[in-house]
Amino acid sequence: MFITSPFFSFFVAHFRDPPRRAMADSNDVNSMAKVLTSKEENYAQWYNDLVLKSGLAENSAVRGCMVIKPYGYAIWENMKGELDRMFKETGHENAYFPLFIPKSFFSREAAHVEGFAKECAVVTHYRLKNDESGSGIVVDPEARLEEELIIRPTSETIIWNTYKNWIQSYRDLPLLINQWANVVRWEMRTRLFLRTAEFLWQEGHTAHATREEAVEETMQMVRVYAEFAEKFLAIPVITGYKTESEKFAGAIDTLTIEALMQDGKALQAGTSHFLGQNFAKAFDVQFTNQEGKLDHVWATSWGMTTRMIGALVMAHSDNQGLVLPPRVAPIQVVIIPIYKGSDEFPAIAETANRIKAELTALGISVKFDDRDTHKPGWKFAEYELKGVPVRIALGPRDIEKGTVEVARRDTLEKEFRTQEGIAPYIQGLLEKIQQNIYQKAYRFREAHTFRVENWEELLDVLDNKGGFALAHWDGTEASEERIKETKATIRCIPLDGKEEEGKCIVSGKPSRKRVLIAKAY
Amino acid sequence: MFITSPFFSFFVAHFRDPPRRAMADSNDVNSMAKVLTSKEENYAQWYNDLVLKSGLAENSAVRGCMVIKPYGYAIWENMKGELDRMFKETGHENAYFPLFIPKSFFSREAAHVEGFAKECAVVTHYRLKNDESGSGIVVDPEARLEEELIIRPTSETIIWNTYKNWIQSYRDLPLLINQWANVVRWEMRTRLFLRTAEFLWQEGHTAHATREEAVEETMQMVRVYAEFAEKFLAIPVITGYKTESEKFAGAIDTLTIEALMQDGKALQAGTSHFLGQNFAKAFDVQFTNQEGKLDHVWATSWGMTTRMIGALVMAHSDNQGLVLPPRVAPIQVVIIPIYKGSDEFPAIAETANRIKAELTALGISVKFDDRDTHKPGWKFAEYELKGVPVRIALGPRDIEKGTVEVARRDTLEKEFRTQEGIAPYIQGLLEKIQQNIYQKAYRFREAHTFRVENWEELLDVLDNKGGFALAHWDGTEASEERIKETKATIRCIPLDGKEEEGKCIVSGKPSRKRVLIAKAY
Repeated sequence: MFITSPFFSFFVAHFRDPPRRAMADSNDVNSMAKVLTSKEENYAQWYNDLVLKSGLAENSAVRGCMVIKPYGYAIWENMKGELDRMFKETGHENAYFPLFIPKSFFSREAAHVEGFAKECAVVTHYRLKNDESGSGIVVDPEARLEEELIIRPTSETIIWNTYKNWIQSYRDLPLLINQWANVVRWEMRTRLFLRTAEFLWQEGHTAHATREEAVEETMQMVRVYAEFAEKFLAIPVITGYKTESEKFAGAIDTLTIEALMQDGKALQAGTSHFLGQNFAKAFDVQFTNQEGKLDHVWATSWGMTTRMIGALVMAHSDNQGLVLPPRVAPIQVVIIPIYKGSDEFPAIAETANRIKAELTALGISVKFDDRDTHKPGWKFAEYELKGVPVRIALGPRDIEKGTVEVARRDTLEKEFRTQEGIAPYIQGLLEKIQQNIYQKAYRFREAHTFRVENWEELLDVLDNKGGFALAHWDGTEASEERIKETKATIRCIPLDGKEEEGKCIVSGKPSRKRVLIAKAY
Repeated sequence: MFITSPFFSFFVAHFRDPPRRAMADSNDVNSMAKVLTSKEENYAQWYNDLVLKSGLAENSAVRGCMVIKPYGYAIWENMKGELDRMFKETGHENAYFPLFIPKSFFSREAAHVEGFAKECAVVTHYRLKNDESGSGIVVDPEARLEEELIIRPTSETIIWNTYKNWIQSYRDLPLLINQWANVVRWEMRTRLFLRTAEFLWQEGHTAHATREEAVEETMQMVRVYAEFAEKFLAIPVITGYKTESEKFAGAIDTLTIEALMQDGKALQAGTSHFLGQNFAKAFDVQFTNQEGKLDHVWATSWGMTTRMIGALVMAHSDNQGLVLPPRVAPIQVVIIPIYKGSDEFPAIAETANRIKAELTALGISVKFDDRDTHKPGWKFAEYELKGVPVRIALGPRDIEKGTVEVARRDTLEKEFRTQEGIAPYIQGLLEKIQQNIYQKAYRFREAHTFRVENWEELLDVLDNKGGFALAHWDGTEASEERIKETKATIRCIPLDGKEEEGKCIVSGKPSRKRVLIAKAY
């Protein structure tokens, strides 16, 4: 695979240092050729290989739980940093609520219990003891909890039970709180990042004096998610409402952002819920309004998870490895020295460190990989696999001539530049790469979004073309159920969808708006 | 209490705007007088009142678990930010491991199981179902886990089980990893921040090729903790080794930092453990060393928790409220407008916003509290309670004269300054306050550290004086047990303790070094 890649052809065509680099590359070919299953061959396997081999995550000894490895966690830290900044800019504060939720709390909100209190981790005991046979430890049957505790699958119930004490008057509102936490949903079939029993996320929980304010907050936060996905992760998304059957358990409305992966499947990337007064009523949270009357509080909740790392991988990566948008990349630029004898190294290292300092001063994250335990070819392949946006190679000839070799991960193109002015050039290049990755994903989505006018055209998209189908739907559950039989779902009713006359592709009944249909993760 | 405080006297003596401020303050006296129990009256109650009333945390509906409120969480975010920076500067990366640990993992390391696998939250089931009587939800008896899962009380076992796959050769070492996580230890008697069933912490887990490197890492990290406590939290600490009976379950050596609270009790503020090859042997983690031979890996672990927020409160605060060192304070400067008519407000707001912008440009965190729902006196008391290091008050006379009133939270002193050059002045003042808070705590500790030469002198310190006792100890468990009967413990064997001839205060046997003894949290 590596041999036929455009990168390799380009590489061969631009040799400046043939014998050594050729050797390095023939090593690459041997060592890298079978690292990844190609995505054309088996997309699911490609994804799994990529997550493992690029060092993002792996399965743990606990069924369904993953270990997020340092490189994957560094991506999550960057995401967290950006989202947290956006939340604070929109007036939110962070807090922390208990991991445990008393079982009885779930029963309070009728729809919520149906949706959330089923596949959960249940704590029943609080003590272990030595086995009397001396063969290990056992659960102490005397340390049984009076009421079982559930590991939070989401925190509406425990949080609204707390808000009850925090809210008395309109002066206490709005309450704009976010939590960064781990949650557990006992999934039977798990996939790294996309579906795991434990995952990391943020959950916003806000309380408002009026319906209008809460609706506006729900909308504001889905816009924050869309902006984050598009500008930071370079993933174009479609924002819209979930249907009744797909909305959050306990919500009046759920807004979602939907992204398209390279295999033509949709991925729900973030949701924002207008909860009405449901939780306030379930937990009796009332406030005195400006007219001095008691009223129930209006609520929203919204969340984004480590699943987005999976989306990031699937949206942009290729058969050589990850392709990370510069804004989220833990390492934005890697500098690799290329030398034969150790006498050549000091001058290269000096230049590399100078360039590194110049880039760092511009706020760019740089790694100078000066390890002598690995060959340049191995390093080239390694950082390609890890999706580092820009690679700078520096050899003895570059030192003589005052040049560097700059390679882009997104296009796999290389070029030679003078060392002078390299830092601002790279800064601009990173921005260009960020835009290019977004544009590529955007073009892919446009090429895989189809207006379908009847059932056959829908099946053609789902079974043959792959991607998003925009179709008229009559708004009934019956028609939606019929669509679900194809294993696709209505992903959302797009916010920016234009009103137009049409006929439901299931029932033929009149419809005034198209919905987005796709198979999904 | 408020009336007799030095702050109030000072306030009265410096009135510029008598009628209005007097009113505001008489409100204060009424509304604030009973906010806090004084620490002289009941230290434990003072602490609890303070944590609740300053909005740091509160108890939750789940026994033993707390809710960390936004103001408390903002302090934790500042601590996290600083510690995380220090960890990364010393070469560590973050990762994330599962919340759950299979029960059998605890049995693998003999000492560890004794110390950690007892008071734990145990997950036995993974599903709930509707009660057949229709009255709620119950645990589904058919969804019993084959092996129970323990909520991590600490993660050595699951992490070393993972490291087994990450480490093959000396080239994979050192492995320098930290995790930010929640952990659960089922405590019977809990106190906000100081002892809760669930708490937040970081746990570092490192793997090394040699004993020397691991010992050096253990020492480096306890030094990081000491520097963090002293420079950031302004809490002086004594660094030393734990005794055999007090060290971490599974460690060869435990290093600790011990701080002194204002009630004369010690608080263990962070620990760093040299684990030898214990966990590597328990989880069979071997590597090929540079000589090509197989050897077990050497380990360390180290942790600091949300308990440090409790230490911060208890080390510095007074009967008016929190006293936060500027480096950790979520709000470093608050600006409060003082005006009668709304026509006076615009000019004040303009100046306030200009000063805020100047301070913000210097990296200072500023809040301009322009709410018209609360009186200035209420705000003064509120930010005093919350420990905001510097308060700036701005009235119409200040606008005329180009002045501001600056009040320090640590000394409760006030002064008038010209608006010109106020930002750099405040910057310097914050630094001065940081140093003063540290110096005050340091002087307190010096005044409450006693060299005791016999049993009676020890009891005098423990029962009457309060504080640290430095005493000779013969190093035996028997003598240590005798000391524990006083309800005090050997907090540590200080690193900087000088060698000197002496006699154990229990046995009279020879000793060459003093140990630190105190009652502790």
